[in-house]
Amino acid sequence: MEISHIEHIGIAVNSLDEAIPFYENILGLKCYKTEEIHDQKVKTAFFMAGQTKIELLEPTSPDSPVARFIEKRGTGLHHLAYAVNNVEEALDELEEKGVQLIDKKGRKGAEGLNIGFLHPKATMGVLTEVCSK
Amino acid sequence: MEISHIEHIGIAVNSLDEAIPFYENILGLKCYKTEEIHDQKVKTAFFMAGQTKIELLEPTSPDSPVARFIEKRGTGLHHLAYAVNNVEEALDELEEKGVQLIDKKGRKGAEGLNIGFLHPKATMGVLTEVCSK
Repeated sequence: MEISHIEHIGIAVNSLDEAIPFYENILGLKCYKTEEIHDQKVKTAFFMAGQTKIELLEPTSPDSPVARFIEKRGTGLHHLAYAVNNVEEALDELEEKGVQLIDKKGRKGAEGLNIGFLHPKATMGVLTEVCSK
Repeated sequence: MEISHIEHIGIAVNSLDEAIPFYENILGLKCYKTEEIHDQKVKTAFFMAGQTKIELLEPTSPDSPVARFIEKRGTGLHHLAYAVNNVEEALDELEEKGVQLIDKKGRKGAEGLNIGFLHPKATMGVLTEVCSK
């Protein structure tokens, strides 16, 4: 598995309406897209910072995984996504190495990427994603 | 304030001896340096992923801020550092905009960078750093 760069950093927020103006007016980043991801029950907002996207995540339902995260740990840094050549190959390789996975096969994520999550138990508490185009 | 890229992502770990082999052997990143930062009471290990460094942080004392973070939230994503042209100017601009800061003036951080932290209360729970060379 070869990581080329950090594809995005996921940040859990209570409200995009509150968070987007902070990232735009205070940090000076530009929101280039918002997208609702129905199977994850989140609304997302994207910003570019060099090679890496900031992906804000607002839960759309109390049973969204992001809502449960916020309930347990508060808003803040949620997950880290590495860009790899091929998610399927990366997940196969990780499984062969004995890494506990949330997704054994790639699935469709935001921005049309093919994505898969490793289990935070296997990554010392960091919810880690691999993704490819 | 202009952000050029994500300079690094700080990750709190219990043990570099446990974490470095995971990042090297499982994720395939290469640890290019370890450094002890005495005033923060942490040992750090650095990896490059594209433009962005992964900075693992192991507390060296129970009263280290990172030890307190782990006690409260567990190991995992700790802070997000944006590269800016000039930290002093960025901190002045943030203060003018009414952002609560941990550091009103830049100070020396890992890798010889000039750094300053924003208060997580001002950033919806994300411990946010700005840094410049």
